[in-house]
Amino acid sequence: MSRLDLKNGSVEMVHGSGGRAMGQLIEELFARALRNQWLDQGNDQAQFELPPGRVVMATDSHVISPLFFPGGDIGSLAVHGTINDVAMAGARPCYLAAGFILEEGFPLADLARIVESMAAAAREAGVPVVTGDTKVVERGKGDGVFITTTGVGVVPPGLYLSGDRARPGDRILLSGSIGDHGVTILSLREGLGFEADIGSDSQALHGLVAAMVEAVPEIRCLRDPTRGGLGNTLNELARQSGVGMQLVERAIPLREPVRAACEFLGLDPLYVANEGKLIAICPAEQAERLLEVMREHPQGREAAIIGTVVADAQCFVQMETLFGGSRMVDWLNGEQLPRMC
Amino acid sequence: MSRLDLKNGSVEMVHGSGGRAMGQLIEELFARALRNQWLDQGNDQAQFELPPGRVVMATDSHVISPLFFPGGDIGSLAVHGTINDVAMAGARPCYLAAGFILEEGFPLADLARIVESMAAAAREAGVPVVTGDTKVVERGKGDGVFITTTGVGVVPPGLYLSGDRARPGDRILLSGSIGDHGVTILSLREGLGFEADIGSDSQALHGLVAAMVEAVPEIRCLRDPTRGGLGNTLNELARQSGVGMQLVERAIPLREPVRAACEFLGLDPLYVANEGKLIAICPAEQAERLLEVMREHPQGREAAIIGTVVADAQCFVQMETLFGGSRMVDWLNGEQLPRMC
Repeated sequence: MSRLDLKNGSVEMVHGSGGRAMGQLIEELFARALRNQWLDQGNDQAQFELPPGRVVMATDSHVISPLFFPGGDIGSLAVHGTINDVAMAGARPCYLAAGFILEEGFPLADLARIVESMAAAAREAGVPVVTGDTKVVERGKGDGVFITTTGVGVVPPGLYLSGDRARPGDRILLSGSIGDHGVTILSLREGLGFEADIGSDSQALHGLVAAMVEAVPEIRCLRDPTRGGLGNTLNELARQSGVGMQLVERAIPLREPVRAACEFLGLDPLYVANEGKLIAICPAEQAERLLEVMREHPQGREAAIIGTVVADAQCFVQMETLFGGSRMVDWLNGEQLPRMC
Repeated sequence: MSRLDLKNGSVEMVHGSGGRAMGQLIEELFARALRNQWLDQGNDQAQFELPPGRVVMATDSHVISPLFFPGGDIGSLAVHGTINDVAMAGARPCYLAAGFILEEGFPLADLARIVESMAAAAREAGVPVVTGDTKVVERGKGDGVFITTTGVGVVPPGLYLSGDRARPGDRILLSGSIGDHGVTILSLREGLGFEADIGSDSQALHGLVAAMVEAVPEIRCLRDPTRGGLGNTLNELARQSGVGMQLVERAIPLREPVRAACEFLGLDPLYVANEGKLIAICPAEQAERLLEVMREHPQGREAAIIGTVVADAQCFVQMETLFGGSRMVDWLNGEQLPRMC
């Protein structure tokens, strides 16, 4: 059997058959890029030890279009996205699993590029992909490649973070500028050229999280504002905790090219997806200390206190605007941006 | 906002937006069917305690077509398939995560039926779905619904099962008849009507596994012969362990309607997918005891010793045929049956 043609070959139905061709795809493409002691075992599952503590599990299916974009691709995004979901429990992400759904005809060169990017992201994060699965669907029944990643991690003893723990008086912090990821994808999709000045913020935030929870274990909750953006994510947290929120627009970091692109595209940056930012809510007394720790970390240099949790039975999120007025930051209604992650 | 129309409604792009409509889909359809304390938390990840021991993780993307079939559907299959991958390490499966990729236009009634079936399978197995994710892709970019499930479990102390542990002299056991799942799907797909007499064997095998490893902790390895069937799975194990295998065809359980359907369809039942059977390899001295334990279990009543591990540097799997001859059971070449799981 000749080697896979990683230059001109493409995914064929036989690569999903469970037979020799699938074995070859796994060996010459997936296992080669992702190589580690768990994948080398060649079993249908991975076995490992976890440090003591509460276990965290998160899963995310990635269907982003286009597959490649400034700042990343579906491979690195699938690693970052799931690491972040695990980390938002205050946990140390330990291991990843990845399920691939490939469309017949997808170029093997693109698949190799994606898997190598995934491997690089996993290596950089120190969170290996230890088990996986590959399926192939007929042409027109998929869209190139979908990747579902699942992560497990462990929460250090003494921590309990959850979206229902925000209390009136708590402060709301944001780790950096909003809208970068979503605006990059949309600009690329529409061929607008804004992506020359902007790029996705896709990154794994567990290092930042580790520094934060170590310094301020009193943090109530963390969440990454991905689909639906900052506005929708704050509404989720407000409803979960049964509180309101009062934001200050001028405190919310927003890069000028992103602001300009949003204006051009008619988008409200509050609802544009992020892939490398987090919201933290903590008691007022710890807010300054937490801000300081975040700003000391490379991923939190632009961190800011953007608002306060208030008592509100209706769980409204409101914002003092740049011009001193007040506006409601409602749930995202309708479909602002499909297939952002 | 009016309630979801679970009778006549369908999946829309907005259901993947991260906004209010997605929240409604999750609440009224997913969380309602799958309800448990972890999903009720409403976080992007689940937190739980695991009993002490080595942790096992497995993931499987399910793209089966058609979605509904005699003996199950993609929902129950996605639960059984991943539970089985975890269980094959000798582990007790504890928790599941599920990622859904939905195609725009997919009927909500079908989705509800699938999620309810998933919930029933998880309940029956005692393995809850504790976290999940939902994405929507445009019409023609998916195929109704794909489900990726990931499971974690724990291996009881003292056990270590792996596909590389088979040794010459070991016995090869099979828990029941082969080919039922694959032949059912193919018959249905081709409109042949065989499925009147047959049905998928889709089932969660962790109860059987628990009984087996308790009675015979010396088991070398377990594996479920899914895609690629018994023939391909034995080749995988032979190569992993660097051994050969000698099978006895008359010992391999095969139901008459499955045999007849395979003959009609021109299929070799050795390569047809199963979703509720397992292969066990154990030292010869324990084989009779293991067979007895398997036969005492409802899922192993037709269990049989089907062959012996032999020394063979070429890792060939060979079989004494019904007629007393000998044949090679090679790796599955080519695409016998796409989208079986």
